[in-house]
Amino acid sequence: MYLHPPDNRLAATVASVTHRWGGEFAVVPVDDWKSLVRSFPGAVVHLTMYGLPLAKTLPKLARHSRILLVVGGAKVPPELYWAARYNVAVGHQPHSEVAAVAVTLERLLGLPEPVRPGAAPQRIVPTARGKRVVGGRSRR
Amino acid sequence: MYLHPPDNRLAATVASVTHRWGGEFAVVPVDDWKSLVRSFPGAVVHLTMYGLPLAKTLPKLARHSRILLVVGGAKVPPELYWAARYNVAVGHQPHSEVAAVAVTLERLLGLPEPVRPGAAPQRIVPTARGKRVVGGRSRR
Repeated sequence: MYLHPPDNRLAATVASVTHRWGGEFAVVPVDDWKSLVRSFPGAVVHLTMYGLPLAKTLPKLARHSRILLVVGGAKVPPELYWAARYNVAVGHQPHSEVAAVAVTLERLLGLPEPVRPGAAPQRIVPTARGKRVVGGRSRR
Repeated sequence: MYLHPPDNRLAATVASVTHRWGGEFAVVPVDDWKSLVRSFPGAVVHLTMYGLPLAKTLPKLARHSRILLVVGGAKVPPELYWAARYNVAVGHQPHSEVAAVAVTLERLLGLPEPVRPGAAPQRIVPTARGKRVVGGRSRR
């Protein structure tokens, strides 16, 4: 995930969570979001409640092998609407940007895969009640 | 949405957004979450990364006509795992509770419906670029 404005503390926190729980998720702090969006070698998809419905846009998105999902905070610079190849709405009423990213990823990629045993120091064993975690001693 | 601990200011903010943009979403501040969960006339579904995979649980959830999704903050009281009929994981690694609710709702109900014209003072007209909003003078 590219993060603008840059926040090195947040990036470090996420790196620590990823180390413990596995996966390849990383936060890359970015100063110049405009050149990142302009030079991205794939489809730039801006998630905004003002855009075209996700259900209608999904078939087009699915044709691209690389997608950069972009969400903004309270005030999105108008030029992003033009820099993006697609402006896409998960819903047309105010909603969480995190929720918009999650639903879009789920529709594009499906639900998260189970975690492979041994892939991380700490791993959840899915259970009907309570918590079962394997490992977990190697916090950093 | 039931909210514990109660936060009347948040409830008022959401009520104002709903008034402007339409819909029936409301926040109900709740003091006693335990009796709410115990007396709910339907299936209580606790979303937690420690639970059983959503993909496997969905067919069971779909059989219930009323569902109470429950998400906790940083520290979820252990008794919730036993009070819930289902403990369900959208993913088995740390993730946003908001994202978990959004993905679960999407899998149960589908993507949000388009907003009916005239249903609210303010309505978005979906567009490929920029922002188109109809109405919007009646802020309160």
